[in-house]
Amino acid sequence: MRIKIINPDYGMTTAEIQERINILQQVTGPDVELSMDCLRNSTVYIDSALDVALASAEIVQQAIQAEQQNYDGIILYCLSDPAVVACREAAGIPVLGGGQAAFLTAASLGYNFSLLCTSPQRIPEKKEFIKTTGVDPTRLCSIRSIDVNLSNIRKDMNKTIDFLAREGRRCVEEDGAEVLILGCLSFLGMAEAVSKRIGLPVIDPAMAVVTMMEGFIRQGLCHSQKSYPTPPRGSRTWLAGKVSINDKTN
Amino acid sequence: MRIKIINPDYGMTTAEIQERINILQQVTGPDVELSMDCLRNSTVYIDSALDVALASAEIVQQAIQAEQQNYDGIILYCLSDPAVVACREAAGIPVLGGGQAAFLTAASLGYNFSLLCTSPQRIPEKKEFIKTTGVDPTRLCSIRSIDVNLSNIRKDMNKTIDFLAREGRRCVEEDGAEVLILGCLSFLGMAEAVSKRIGLPVIDPAMAVVTMMEGFIRQGLCHSQKSYPTPPRGSRTWLAGKVSINDKTN
Amino acid sequence: MRIKIINPDYGMTTAEIQERINILQQVTGPDVELSMDCLRNSTVYIDSALDVALASAEIVQQAIQAEQQNYDGIILYCLSDPAVVACREAAGIPVLGGGQAAFLTAASLGYNFSLLCTSPQRIPEKKEFIKTTGVDPTRLCSIRSIDVNLSNIRKDMNKTIDFLAREGRRCVEEDGAEVLILGCLSFLGMAEAVSKRIGLPVIDPAMAVVTMMEGFIRQGLCHSQKSYPTPPRGSRTWLAGKVSINDKTN
Amino acid sequence: MRIKIINPDYGMTTAEIQERINILQQVTGPDVELSMDCLRNSTVYIDSALDVALASAEIVQQAIQAEQQNYDGIILYCLSDPAVVACREAAGIPVLGGGQAAFLTAASLGYNFSLLCTSPQRIPEKKEFIKTTGVDPTRLCSIRSIDVNLSNIRKDMNKTIDFLAREGRRCVEEDGAEVLILGCLSFLGMAEAVSKRIGLPVIDPAMAVVTMMEGFIRQGLCHSQKSYPTPPRGSRTWLAGKVSINDKTN
Amino acid sequence: MRIKIINPDYGMTTAEIQERINILQQVTGPDVELSMDCLRNSTVYIDSALDVALASAEIVQQAIQAEQQNYDGIILYCLSDPAVVACREAAGIPVLGGGQAAFLTAASLGYNFSLLCTSPQRIPEKKEFIKTTGVDPTRLCSIRSIDVNLSNIRKDMNKTIDFLAREGRRCVEEDGAEVLILGCLSFLGMAEAVSKRIGLPVIDPAMAVVTMMEGFIRQGLCHSQKSYPTPPRGSRTWLAGKVSINDKTN
Amino acid sequence: MRIKIINPDYGMTTAEIQERINILQQVTGPDVELSMDCLRNSTVYIDSALDVALASAEIVQQAIQAEQQNYDGIILYCLSDPAVVACREAAGIPVLGGGQAAFLTAASLGYNFSLLCTSPQRIPEKKEFIKTTGVDPTRLCSIRSIDVNLSNIRKDMNKTIDFLAREGRRCVEEDGAEVLILGCLSFLGMAEAVSKRIGLPVIDPAMAVVTMMEGFIRQGLCHSQKSYPTPPRGSRTWLAGKVSINDKTN
Repeated sequence: MRIKIINPDYGMTTAEIQERINILQQVTGPDVELSMDCLRNSTVYIDSALDVALASAEIVQQAIQAEQQNYDGIILYCLSDPAVVACREAAGIPVLGGGQAAFLTAASLGYNFSLLCTSPQRIPEKKEFIKTTGVDPTRLCSIRSIDVNLSNIRKDMNKTIDFLAREGRRCVEEDGAEVLILGCLSFLGMAEAVSKRIGLPVIDPAMAVVTMMEGFIRQGLCHSQKSYPTPPRGSRTWLAGKVSINDKTN
Repeated sequence: MRIKIINPDYGMTTAEIQERINILQQVTGPDVELSMDCLRNSTVYIDSALDVALASAEIVQQAIQAEQQNYDGIILYCLSDPAVVACREAAGIPVLGGGQAAFLTAASLGYNFSLLCTSPQRIPEKKEFIKTTGVDPTRLCSIRSIDVNLSNIRKDMNKTIDFLAREGRRCVEEDGAEVLILGCLSFLGMAEAVSKRIGLPVIDPAMAVVTMMEGFIRQGLCHSQKSYPTPPRGSRTWLAGKVSINDKTN
Repeated sequence: MRIKIINPDYGMTTAEIQERINILQQVTGPDVELSMDCLRNSTVYIDSALDVALASAEIVQQAIQAEQQNYDGIILYCLSDPAVVACREAAGIPVLGGGQAAFLTAASLGYNFSLLCTSPQRIPEKKEFIKTTGVDPTRLCSIRSIDVNLSNIRKDMNKTIDFLAREGRRCVEEDGAEVLILGCLSFLGMAEAVSKRIGLPVIDPAMAVVTMMEGFIRQGLCHSQKSYPTPPRGSRTWLAGKVSINDKTN
Repeated sequence: MRIKIINPDYGMTTAEIQERINILQQVTGPDVELSMDCLRNSTVYIDSALDVALASAEIVQQAIQAEQQNYDGIILYCLSDPAVVACREAAGIPVLGGGQAAFLTAASLGYNFSLLCTSPQRIPEKKEFIKTTGVDPTRLCSIRSIDVNLSNIRKDMNKTIDFLAREGRRCVEEDGAEVLILGCLSFLGMAEAVSKRIGLPVIDPAMAVVTMMEGFIRQGLCHSQKSYPTPPRGSRTWLAGKVSINDKTN
Repeated sequence: MRIKIINPDYGMTTAEIQERINILQQVTGPDVELSMDCLRNSTVYIDSALDVALASAEIVQQAIQAEQQNYDGIILYCLSDPAVVACREAAGIPVLGGGQAAFLTAASLGYNFSLLCTSPQRIPEKKEFIKTTGVDPTRLCSIRSIDVNLSNIRKDMNKTIDFLAREGRRCVEEDGAEVLILGCLSFLGMAEAVSKRIGLPVIDPAMAVVTMMEGFIRQGLCHSQKSYPTPPRGSRTWLAGKVSINDKTN
Repeated sequence: MRIKIINPDYGMTTAEIQERINILQQVTGPDVELSMDCLRNSTVYIDSALDVALASAEIVQQAIQAEQQNYDGIILYCLSDPAVVACREAAGIPVLGGGQAAFLTAASLGYNFSLLCTSPQRIPEKKEFIKTTGVDPTRLCSIRSIDVNLSNIRKDMNKTIDFLAREGRRCVEEDGAEVLILGCLSFLGMAEAVSKRIGLPVIDPAMAVVTMMEGFIRQGLCHSQKSYPTPPRGSRTWLAGKVSINDKTN
């Protein structure tokens, strides 16, 4: 079984990719082969809806390619599930994002859960996003963010785990959370340590999406053609260019 | 007051654009100036989430440009509100799509409403979409589609109105609708005729979004920076290319 | 276009009415004519459901009169939308209250909003009221009240604005609000100042309802006869009299 | 224990009132004394929100009087619970309407229920009303109406029961109802016969509200002063007059 | 009218039972006869879902017996409504638990209510439970627990009332509660004292379920055979034995 | 990895059990070992809430035993998830039922789904059950049942598949389903054939729960101790005996 992971951030090195594959491979069956690709032509890091808008075209192109290369499933390596619906329309193999997988996993481990994000700016969008994942949205207790720069998350992992455990404890004590979700795929491999500190289950969205995809492929399940119908046949071209965001004056 | 209407379909002629402007100008205040642009570089017509993924980049670019040209507001001329969130992040002037405007308008004219779409394929997506518009989703009675090709909608308008009135009556009699929404911006100018046949209010989403935008501008209101924060400063490039969808083999 | 505003409070002076009209006229199109009437025969100020019960008859009578005088629309100048449903049944022109208009406007400017009321006593009723406005009630973050007597609201406007800004900031910081709604029509003209202090959109319900009504009239839209059917034909008389509320002993 | 029943319809005869009391007395404890009053000064029959608007003042006045006369509880004898909130604000003894009582009773006898109304015109309003009763609104399967004139309901009771049983069966077979509610207090005494025909529980709202009120009084419970605060002290006068509804031209 | 109360805790003395009956008899009609049985063969006290699983068989057996002994109704004397659905399937007389009765009663006395439990451990389960009671779950403000051992609740009642009043006040002031529910049947007889301290209605679930059952019997109502169908005819045997829970090692 | 499957029906033969294991083993990773036990001491087949009440004690006992025997996870082989909450409280290894697993799987393959049951009698209970699974309950389009006796389901599998495909098509065409769930674990192995006939994904709940459990174990995840706290330490005995259900007279 071969799973293609599309990482919708630009320019990760081979070593960085391999590190992630190695960790994820620990939670798959022995017959599962993982492969990860980054964005190569769009210098975008998913940190806003604007970024999703700009990256979507290349994401879809990679998804179509993965199907042509006979992969068995496609994973969007991001909590925002960027372009997942478009990829499901375009591809005949299962497509799953880290966000939906994490929320559904949380729902089966307890009644009420919280999400730990990287930035307070993204909280409103995440609160909205959960309504589209199929999870009962009243199960979400709270969304909190930690005080760490995205690019530093994996540089000092112990510090990141400290931050996560501290905010996670507030979710439990102040908001009533019974389960926690790490709200960014860059927290890969930290859930177990956070869980030990807090004494409650903590979901690693990257692991959740990989094992859920493995399960879909084993069951021969693919998303519904009625929910995500194949778009009308025909070629489509689109714009090339450059957008600068400088305090809202381009 | 100057409002830019972004029509996210490719290649409309100047005459076609002018026809729409003329109709819409009838429902604006005398001091409102409307201007409409189509996609020029993306040969895309919004008929799927894939199309939205491909068109989003150019839509955002046009929105940024409209703000630079000192427009007072931006309208997405489509019921799916494509890239509206990205445009709100990128622009400091109000941005509104036809879908959200139509749903909110319907909610103030009666308790329960139905939507009349152009294709049965898009019904699941529309049912999902309403959850993100801020309208109480339990107000939606039903979504029905009419039997007419998108490109024929405006060729024989009387026939289209017949279809809309017939399906609209089923929404009222079988589904309990009290208000109807025309589910495509191409139905422009037909709501009044359908309403006369059925005896209930019928929302023209293009008119709804134009008058709602006019109201926002008069009140000096713009979307919340907290809901739609300005993305991190910096340039972003993205992919140019071509995607063919041929029965899921590229 | 002529809009009748029914102010369901007793005994406002001509000067007070004119002050409100002047402010509101700034947000209408140049072809809109506003006119406001107060209750003249019911010595009631809307500050409870009891007050609504007592004022309803005169409100309905004024609404019927406005239609006879060929007004194009009727506004209930109150956040509680008193007797709006009865007026919609009785009148064949659009009828809209400040509450529903404000909630629907808020829903299009961000995901989650809070309401700033004049009295903590009215909070439970307002929380209930939102369920009937057509807005997704899960969007309401919180309702908070400020510490100012109703009759003093417009005497020292800067002080009122201070109170609103202070409580509004708590809505944003403690409750997660992204948009604010001023919860009384007497806050007319203060939204802009509060918005500047807080950096987020603030809805003036009086302006919201006037521009929304203008939009309805331009579109030729009226509430649904199926939602608000004309009552059975015939005369109805009702009670005249006096009710004293003295600590629950009449 | 003495319970005052306010019947918000004009001009019932003493015999008609006594007939209702006799039936209701069969479901009360032996120590319960029922007394019913009609509207005497408002020539209104509750068949619209307009009627509620006109009758509210006299209803509230009767409620205040009932408390002065040392009644232990007040019942609004109508499925629309007219002016119940105003009466709760004005009175320090429990106040309950037939609608809320019937919905809460249904919720404890099965999962999903339907409502049988007297007129298709009132269905939208009833569907809205349930959201304010405290019952989980997703429990409502359907609202159907029977084909009988209000004034004939009690003239040929067997015929009315036939109609109710026929429509009730459709609720069960087509809509999935497990419990039925008779949607008008004039169906008094017919629930048992309908239940026997259908084989499922059928709620008589008049009986439901009387026994629920009896239970409140025995428990010493009264509605919350925080939900329904006493209005500000002071006299209020209101309008006397006459409204004619003639095809929307007064 | 004879009502059987099944107390799903083991080994209460005759005196303890009689004390409860005496208190409850004060809120019934003069023609109501109450009788209470405890578990006799299962040494279980309901303090977890495991306890419910173990006690269910004996509860059902007692319910079947009560019907055979011509009781008119069966009450489950517990806020968790243990085995109520199974009892409704097995018995042809009305069955009601303290939890559902308390929630439905609260819903008719105000908009929003809180629950006061005996242990913080049971809060997540209670929050889930309310979704199955037919009450609108958005009415629940909060669940708080007091600091008292179950076996001490009735030893120093004044102390228990102090704890309840203190936590209840926090529900009102911090969570917005307008009505309180005592979250354990062992708080019997304390609601009135708590209510006097707080100035808001406080529901005694034991009293609520007894008076609601009395009302059902007077109305001749029983739960729906469609919601709770009689199980297929036939004998069923089940396991006898012993389970020890010792830190998860049996 | 060793997974214990508890089949809460009495008296399956070794051959019947082996047939199920063989089918399920096809969807697991090569390193997964499945083992299934039936009820041995309770002559119960889960076909009502009463049956769940009677079987629960033995189910819990088997779950405790499975943990003692060092299994890595426990599956309840039934769509009703009988005693799952009690097992989660009692066991320190993950516990999952077929119902919750099937609903969560459906939610990730499309927006709206239907359930195909074995009996119309169980439809109300299933509609209620979904509210407790963590899935957004508004995603459920409909529940339909097929016309086949439980004991014949696997005797003529082609006939069962025919029935499922026919009813499934009605879910799609009349109710708007985009995904189907087979509503009984006895439909094991039939989903693929039904899916081919209908052209949409069909969930086999037994396969869904096995692959989801495999994923949990690989991730090291277990249900939350806060949601399902370990019950107070101590022995509990319970009743042995016999219950006969004969038309509600024992």
